[in-house]
Amino acid sequence: HTHSHTLCEKRVCVFGTGDMGRSLGLRLLQAGYSVMFGSRRPQSCNFLPNGAQVLSHAEAAQAAHLIFIAVQREHYDFLVPLAYHLKGKVLVDLSNNLKKNQYPEANAEYLQSLVPEAEVVKGFNTLSAWALQNGPSDANRQVYICGDRAEAKQVVLAVATKLGFSALDRGSLSASRELEDFPLQLFPLWRLPMRIAVGLTAFFFFYLLIREILYAYITQGKDISFRIMVSLANRVCPIVSLIMLALCYLPGVLASFLQLYRGTKYRRFPDWLDRWMLCRKQLGLLALGFACLHVLYTLIIPIRYYVRFWATERTVTQIRQNGTNEFITSRAWHSDSYLSFGILGFGLYVLLGITSLPSVSNALSWREFSFVQSKLGHLTLLLCTIHTYLYGGKRFLSASLYNWYTPPGYMLCLVLPSVVLLLKLLLVTPCVDRNITRIRQGWEKGADQRNSKNNKTLVL
Amino acid sequence: HTHSHTLCEKRVCVFGTGDMGRSLGLRLLQAGYSVMFGSRRPQSCNFLPNGAQVLSHAEAAQAAHLIFIAVQREHYDFLVPLAYHLKGKVLVDLSNNLKKNQYPEANAEYLQSLVPEAEVVKGFNTLSAWALQNGPSDANRQVYICGDRAEAKQVVLAVATKLGFSALDRGSLSASRELEDFPLQLFPLWRLPMRIAVGLTAFFFFYLLIREILYAYITQGKDISFRIMVSLANRVCPIVSLIMLALCYLPGVLASFLQLYRGTKYRRFPDWLDRWMLCRKQLGLLALGFACLHVLYTLIIPIRYYVRFWATERTVTQIRQNGTNEFITSRAWHSDSYLSFGILGFGLYVLLGITSLPSVSNALSWREFSFVQSKLGHLTLLLCTIHTYLYGGKRFLSASLYNWYTPPGYMLCLVLPSVVLLLKLLLVTPCVDRNITRIRQGWEKGADQRNSKNNKTLVL
Amino acid sequence: HTHSHTLCEKRVCVFGTGDMGRSLGLRLLQAGYSVMFGSRRPQSCNFLPNGAQVLSHAEAAQAAHLIFIAVQREHYDFLVPLAYHLKGKVLVDLSNNLKKNQYPEANAEYLQSLVPEAEVVKGFNTLSAWALQNGPSDANRQVYICGDRAEAKQVVLAVATKLGFSALDRGSLSASRELEDFPLQLFPLWRLPMRIAVGLTAFFFFYLLIREILYAYITQGKDISFRIMVSLANRVCPIVSLIMLALCYLPGVLASFLQLYRGTKYRRFPDWLDRWMLCRKQLGLLALGFACLHVLYTLIIPIRYYVRFWATERTVTQIRQNGTNEFITSRAWHSDSYLSFGILGFGLYVLLGITSLPSVSNALSWREFSFVQSKLGHLTLLLCTIHTYLYGGKRFLSASLYNWYTPPGYMLCLVLPSVVLLLKLLLVTPCVDRNITRIRQGWEKGADQRNSKNNKTLVL
Repeated sequence: HTHSHTLCEKRVCVFGTGDMGRSLGLRLLQAGYSVMFGSRRPQSCNFLPNGAQVLSHAEAAQAAHLIFIAVQREHYDFLVPLAYHLKGKVLVDLSNNLKKNQYPEANAEYLQSLVPEAEVVKGFNTLSAWALQNGPSDANRQVYICGDRAEAKQVVLAVATKLGFSALDRGSLSASRELEDFPLQLFPLWRLPMRIAVGLTAFFFFYLLIREILYAYITQGKDISFRIMVSLANRVCPIVSLIMLALCYLPGVLASFLQLYRGTKYRRFPDWLDRWMLCRKQLGLLALGFACLHVLYTLIIPIRYYVRFWATERTVTQIRQNGTNEFITSRAWHSDSYLSFGILGFGLYVLLGITSLPSVSNALSWREFSFVQSKLGHLTLLLCTIHTYLYGGKRFLSASLYNWYTPPGYMLCLVLPSVVLLLKLLLVTPCVDRNITRIRQGWEKGADQRNSKNNKTLVL
Repeated sequence: HTHSHTLCEKRVCVFGTGDMGRSLGLRLLQAGYSVMFGSRRPQSCNFLPNGAQVLSHAEAAQAAHLIFIAVQREHYDFLVPLAYHLKGKVLVDLSNNLKKNQYPEANAEYLQSLVPEAEVVKGFNTLSAWALQNGPSDANRQVYICGDRAEAKQVVLAVATKLGFSALDRGSLSASRELEDFPLQLFPLWRLPMRIAVGLTAFFFFYLLIREILYAYITQGKDISFRIMVSLANRVCPIVSLIMLALCYLPGVLASFLQLYRGTKYRRFPDWLDRWMLCRKQLGLLALGFACLHVLYTLIIPIRYYVRFWATERTVTQIRQNGTNEFITSRAWHSDSYLSFGILGFGLYVLLGITSLPSVSNALSWREFSFVQSKLGHLTLLLCTIHTYLYGGKRFLSASLYNWYTPPGYMLCLVLPSVVLLLKLLLVTPCVDRNITRIRQGWEKGADQRNSKNNKTLVL
Repeated sequence: HTHSHTLCEKRVCVFGTGDMGRSLGLRLLQAGYSVMFGSRRPQSCNFLPNGAQVLSHAEAAQAAHLIFIAVQREHYDFLVPLAYHLKGKVLVDLSNNLKKNQYPEANAEYLQSLVPEAEVVKGFNTLSAWALQNGPSDANRQVYICGDRAEAKQVVLAVATKLGFSALDRGSLSASRELEDFPLQLFPLWRLPMRIAVGLTAFFFFYLLIREILYAYITQGKDISFRIMVSLANRVCPIVSLIMLALCYLPGVLASFLQLYRGTKYRRFPDWLDRWMLCRKQLGLLALGFACLHVLYTLIIPIRYYVRFWATERTVTQIRQNGTNEFITSRAWHSDSYLSFGILGFGLYVLLGITSLPSVSNALSWREFSFVQSKLGHLTLLLCTIHTYLYGGKRFLSASLYNWYTPPGYMLCLVLPSVVLLLKLLLVTPCVDRNITRIRQGWEKGADQRNSKNNKTLVL
């Protein structure tokens, strides 16, 4: 009995002889299953994997308990006349759409409505056809399945395991919409931050190009265009990085003020704020990328031909002029503090990046995560802002820097971080902090008087 | 029939109108559930989310199959009179405590004892109220549930999936104590290593402050206080890093010697050794952090004003004195080896850090993990120790370095790593290694004679 | 009733008194289970954990519902006479083998065939005995179980959770072969890339040792052996890194040409290509490691004694000869571009490394993953190749560099990346790209004519 049962389990059917069907069939055969293709014209099917049987739809449906539907949604109606044969069978919907919200309901739910007595399971659609053919690798290892019947999901899960994939149950069939949208996404949360990064980079690149390189060329006739490659890049990177880091903490501060103003936390934020808050992690990670480039660009400074040349020239000039150079302690203090704040800020920055790796943030409780992201995050912003102020040093007042009446880049980039830090400072003053904490614990303005009795007995 | 079933599934009840209750209710409504609040005084409940019904406890309990208990444990006794209505219902215990071990049994187990005929599931308590209101994000994505009945857990799991969380079944209700302790933790395993790091940093900071900066000021009247920012930091970081790396491998070595001495591996280690061994990973990661800072502080050396100034001065002096400088090959060997060992040690160090990321270490078999952490770990310690010895170079013997009869920092920090490496060397000598391997495979001192017969037939 | 049920659940039995049995027994006792050891000679069993009972096999089998089999496969036949007592019991097979494919079928399947009426679950075998004794830590946290009966797996899963492990269901008992092979593996996919890395490193080390250091010694009598530590290392690292990065993208390009030539994607690649493609990730990560070392070796250049010495000497010479040095803008352009391309290439390289972390690649859809790995990957290769060409600069033509008629290392290492980039360029030309895309979507050469009708109606 057990033996025949196992045999039966080993028999699966694939409807559809397109790419998906053939790729899956090939893999199933390699994994030891006996595969039957269901086709409208079983006689004229070529190019199917060796070892697979080709039957009519009705025959194939009768022969196997598990049926993969590798057919496009538009052709699903061929299943309606087969409803009798599909009763109690497990149908796996593999289909994907070409764009989001193409149809009113998910493909798998549509399939279930066509053959209500079959047990539809959505699954395998998040894999590429390549992975279905060749087995799992990296981003193609995880398979998501969902369906309304636990037994049916168990059957599909067993096949997934057998094919080498690691399957994850995502709940009832109503999750299939989400699964069908998954393969269509191309970094959705990265788009806004990416655009901000590109925009800021372009702006500051041309701004600095004009006020430094073009300025030198026009007013002094000097060609210092070679500075584009390293010097200019090493100005743009830290500027963009600091602004984006500030943009990453600004929405949280704005949200707090909005909650304070409204006196409740139960009302939704405006849409733009919601969208902004959702991409804070991506903003922060892009900012970290720019910070890393800044560090690399800074560390190679002494290797550059330009720098080595002028170091030598300075020494030569000093000797020829027989001058003496005095060591200025305050300058040493300034140069060292500037570097030290930068290093500490960057160290914390990398730490924030590491804790945002999925496996690390999953291992943290939300109390730990918010400690790292909020406390350490604002500390990072503070250190990096001080680093930039120190970079400016006494130069803020020297008029000679205002080429063509434009301020240098580092002054522009200090505006936003300073504002964020000032607002945050306001929020952590005891009296404001007390109010915001109360609101975050569920208190609402005006609620005290009206239902104080209930609160006393039932509030959690 | 199916339709009415789905409708019923969509009806959930929330007991408790505090922050947790309201936040959860809001999210459930947004996910398409029809939400009923159960309240003692349904008439006087304000501030509940729009669209939710408010009923008495008894009415609400009858109307829904799934009931979230968002009430503090102290008020659970209001459920006892409702026991009849709660029979067979799924109760989700969301509660948390203010501190660990506040009550003799877990809240969920207490709830189950009050209404033994309900099916209690612990869950959602590891999320912040914010996540319950706004849906998942980073550290708030994973939901843990536990309970004694699989069907009840399945129902809760489906809701969690629907709300966008990824739920993980943690077994029977006896795991609820663990789930209730989870939100209370704030880096418990990082505390001891953090204290050690702060202690060591403070000690070496003041030690070096006194013997270098204060010494120069008092004996020579020179103000070199600017060295605090970079030079001093770049001495403290590698010293603390090396000592903590040694502290990370010391307990393993001690444990081996203890097992050798006792002749068995089945006796527990003393408590202090156990605690120490449990935080080795954290010790190592903190040490890696200090090593990274050391690398950054070292790489910016040529950019410092102080360094650039003296480089120029040396050249100027050499020319004015018309002296010649000879290239010393042994010094080049020494300087290059010192740097090269540091780089290789740091490279391995980072590799160790990467393999301790949860997702990477989960992908390794324990044989692979122990290869990396033990073999490569000790190799890292060896390389870093050689790096430090080379840094000292010939200076070990020069008396002029012993300001105020104190040894320089790098000598102090070499003691512990040298001891650990020597002890490890002892352990890998063939005769000791044979004994330790035997013990690790289950051999016990004195066991040979007594039950040799059993061993022959049954040992695995 | 519930109470007695819980008591019964708390009773587990361990067959086998070897290391695994004792370690597991100890842990079970600590977790609150009442443990019974089953032994052939219960009277003569010593050294078992305190608190455990020792019974005969038959007695123990009757007393518990859950039985751990911690006995070597060779001794499994002692279970056959106990079959009657084991009926319906859950047997957990903990065994491992000494090498892969030692036996025709997996141990757990063999066990099931011996006692067909018991419910065999494979599990816990991927843990070290140390973890079984002391509880989970890092690579010992995940437990994999598989078996044919869901209820039996549920029981084992509950115990695993109770012991602190996080258990993962890997499907039916047929997965047990895979679980038994897991603890035997020691970086199987890293072996080939590791050998390539060691081979290339050794070859280029000796090649450069001969043509630079030995050449200088023999032809000019100069001892520049100190250059081995940093200069030579910093040539070997980037060379090996670039070649391995090219080797990582070569198989993909070759596979595309093979598919073009064959006109189908459904035929398997030759074995060597398959094996090569499977270890691309490891090749890339090793290449990244070498690139990191190259970056560190480059950044410490200005700190080296050798470099500082010659910088001073050059200045001194210039002054004594009263010569002037002119700033050459083209050299500044060249030096800065060279560095800038290197930095950008390295930045992208690190990004590729981060996306290959398991938790990051699991969070990506395959469309996102292939975008990063293919598009950004080839861009990285392009940037790094340009970086190397720029390093060479005008030197390609200068005959003086061809010591002993051998080309410098960087020329050799440019061959492979250039070939890969050229081939890739061919593949992305519109006409070739159209063909390859068609093939990847399931088109087959010669299929058009024959079954064009079917395709029209059923292709997905």
